[in-house]
Amino acid sequence: MQPLPGFRDFYPEDCAFRRWIIDSWRLWAHRYGFVEYDGPPLEPLELYKKKSGDELVGQLYHFVDKGDREVALRAEMTPTLARMVSARHRDFRKPLKWFSVPQVFRYERSQKGRLREHFQLNCDLIGEQGLDADIELISLCLDILRGLGLQADDIVVRLSDRQFWVDFLRAQSVPEDQWYMVFQAIDKSEREPEEKTRERLGALADPVLQVLRGGATSERLDYVMKGLAARGLAEFAQVDFRIVRGLAYYTGVVFEVFDRKGEFRAIAGGGRYDDLLEKLGQESLPAVGFGMGDVVLGELLKARGLAPKIKDHLQAFVVLAEEAHRLAASGIVQQLRQAGLSVDYPLAETKMKKQFESAEHRGARFIVIVDSKFAEGLVHLKELSTREQIEVPVTELLSTLQAKFKG
Amino acid sequence: MQPLPGFRDFYPEDCAFRRWIIDSWRLWAHRYGFVEYDGPPLEPLELYKKKSGDELVGQLYHFVDKGDREVALRAEMTPTLARMVSARHRDFRKPLKWFSVPQVFRYERSQKGRLREHFQLNCDLIGEQGLDADIELISLCLDILRGLGLQADDIVVRLSDRQFWVDFLRAQSVPEDQWYMVFQAIDKSEREPEEKTRERLGALADPVLQVLRGGATSERLDYVMKGLAARGLAEFAQVDFRIVRGLAYYTGVVFEVFDRKGEFRAIAGGGRYDDLLEKLGQESLPAVGFGMGDVVLGELLKARGLAPKIKDHLQAFVVLAEEAHRLAASGIVQQLRQAGLSVDYPLAETKMKKQFESAEHRGARFIVIVDSKFAEGLVHLKELSTREQIEVPVTELLSTLQAKFKG
Repeated sequence: MQPLPGFRDFYPEDCAFRRWIIDSWRLWAHRYGFVEYDGPPLEPLELYKKKSGDELVGQLYHFVDKGDREVALRAEMTPTLARMVSARHRDFRKPLKWFSVPQVFRYERSQKGRLREHFQLNCDLIGEQGLDADIELISLCLDILRGLGLQADDIVVRLSDRQFWVDFLRAQSVPEDQWYMVFQAIDKSEREPEEKTRERLGALADPVLQVLRGGATSERLDYVMKGLAARGLAEFAQVDFRIVRGLAYYTGVVFEVFDRKGEFRAIAGGGRYDDLLEKLGQESLPAVGFGMGDVVLGELLKARGLAPKIKDHLQAFVVLAEEAHRLAASGIVQQLRQAGLSVDYPLAETKMKKQFESAEHRGARFIVIVDSKFAEGLVHLKELSTREQIEVPVTELLSTLQAKFKG
Repeated sequence: MQPLPGFRDFYPEDCAFRRWIIDSWRLWAHRYGFVEYDGPPLEPLELYKKKSGDELVGQLYHFVDKGDREVALRAEMTPTLARMVSARHRDFRKPLKWFSVPQVFRYERSQKGRLREHFQLNCDLIGEQGLDADIELISLCLDILRGLGLQADDIVVRLSDRQFWVDFLRAQSVPEDQWYMVFQAIDKSEREPEEKTRERLGALADPVLQVLRGGATSERLDYVMKGLAARGLAEFAQVDFRIVRGLAYYTGVVFEVFDRKGEFRAIAGGGRYDDLLEKLGQESLPAVGFGMGDVVLGELLKARGLAPKIKDHLQAFVVLAEEAHRLAASGIVQQLRQAGLSVDYPLAETKMKKQFESAEHRGARFIVIVDSKFAEGLVHLKELSTREQIEVPVTELLSTLQAKFKG
């Protein structure tokens, strides 16, 4: 029997890799003063319809539950966040700096870098309309990726300005119901021949293409670039008006992070969405946020040789030379674990040679040998890397080990 | 809009409490030499039917997906574990010591201590049939609870022996298709008047009640009790043949942990299931495991006053006295974060008084004040607890802070 298509089993090695990524997300979020929240993995379908409209329901993992409710596996975190913030934002000092690491679900055809589930870091800064919030968030996004080993020749954040495009479309008198089509044309312009883009844009082709070729500026983006430079992140960033972010709710600076070689999908993306909370809840609150998934990021890190070999190392392995001492050995193991050490021992009678192999295999730093000397209150303590072996009174085993770990 | 019935929103405070519990689970699992795995939160319905039979499907959160597959939100981890182990167990040295912290789902009426979702620690030891594996696992279960502050007058693990009952039923010539009914009667005997139990058991009433009153012994349980005593855990354990564990698949020692006052549902439970992997997969492998949820445990910890006040503390808050230095201040913040400190600063122009309040509110240990002295390359460094304030060259700020954190 297999997992469902698009879903992953995480064997210990894969789970450790995922944990390494998620721990790194948490570490940097905390450094930036973000606090963690979470919500249900199953939500009323209505919550998603409200935000994205019916057209996105096609990608949702939705169904009718036994209580006849229309429900969906969470496809993204923002609607849940909006619900939670609307309900209780008066209980918290603004701005909120909140992050979450939900597993999210889409019912799509599985393909490279796109499964039916992934873990997604969500960082949102709510209640601050100034551009320094945008800079803070983009910096966090970059610092996480730098922390995982990615450098400025590996990745770039492409910055754009949704408000610029809105002003542009208004100036060109394009009716609002055509904006989405224009954004789609801009979004696709990178992967399509110019002919096709011109066709999509019609009369707008010339002015739009002029912008895409660099014939435009945005004060907002200039400010953001200056802010990133002050933090030493300039070389990771470039202005690129082709980034529009498909979803309709962005209102200001938007950004996406890509690998420089262009081999992968976007690694992260986000932007300002000052109107969304009002649209979903009752309160109007400015907000800026980004999401970063574990799948594309994991593929990129592996491709660039940055995925560490992670192994759970034991600190000590207790070798049992004589079964008669089994109970006593388990007491020693217990004592060491209580003191915070990661320790294992054989749970059934096992040949000495095999026990030593187990200790090596599990990456134990020390071996404690319980043999006939135990009757005299002594055990042998061996450091595997140096092969150095000493005799230690059982009563001094813990303190000896602690001294060696400190040393 | 509300979350679905039986599902929880985790605001930062709740999320920190959950994280405290889960971190503790991980910490102790690692000390015991367990490694983490995970599987999909959605599985083929068939996987659960195979293990538990059709009668449990009523409690499953199952539905037909868009690809016409019968699927279910994971109700428990063991079927997923069995699938994963069957597929690849030859790649790993035995015994496997694996743990996982899945969120699991049941479609039941919500009530105290029982929602429609909870997080559940699963620890399983696979490939070792000896009783020392059972002892190891029960010890881990107890050490986790002790690590959270629960003592022997708070909790007790009640040990029983499913094999004892099977031998008993065979000796009494009870046909196998009636065993489940007998187990149910034993399970309910604690909460029902003796009359009712006698009625359920019929001719078996006398011999069963004799066992329940302590008129029986089990060599296996004697061995386990001795093993727990060697680890200093005797006062946490008692033999109690009333524990049978409803599910049909247990084959040996079984156990459940309860609060001594009997106010809550079981906090954890598990036992040996040597036949299950063969039943679900192709291989026969002895196994013992337990599960522990976050809901009942969390309620107990709160009731016993053991839930800590958890707050994310900032290490430093940078106060910006003059907007002119905003970019420079952001550079300082960036430098401190890069060095591993948790630091924040105001993202928009804010009155000094309010900035100091923010720093206090966020639990910052230090305040760095960037004011007119910055032109001379100086900042003020204030320790909030002592109110001590010094002037420090910007170039020495990080090293000064690091020295103070070490001291």
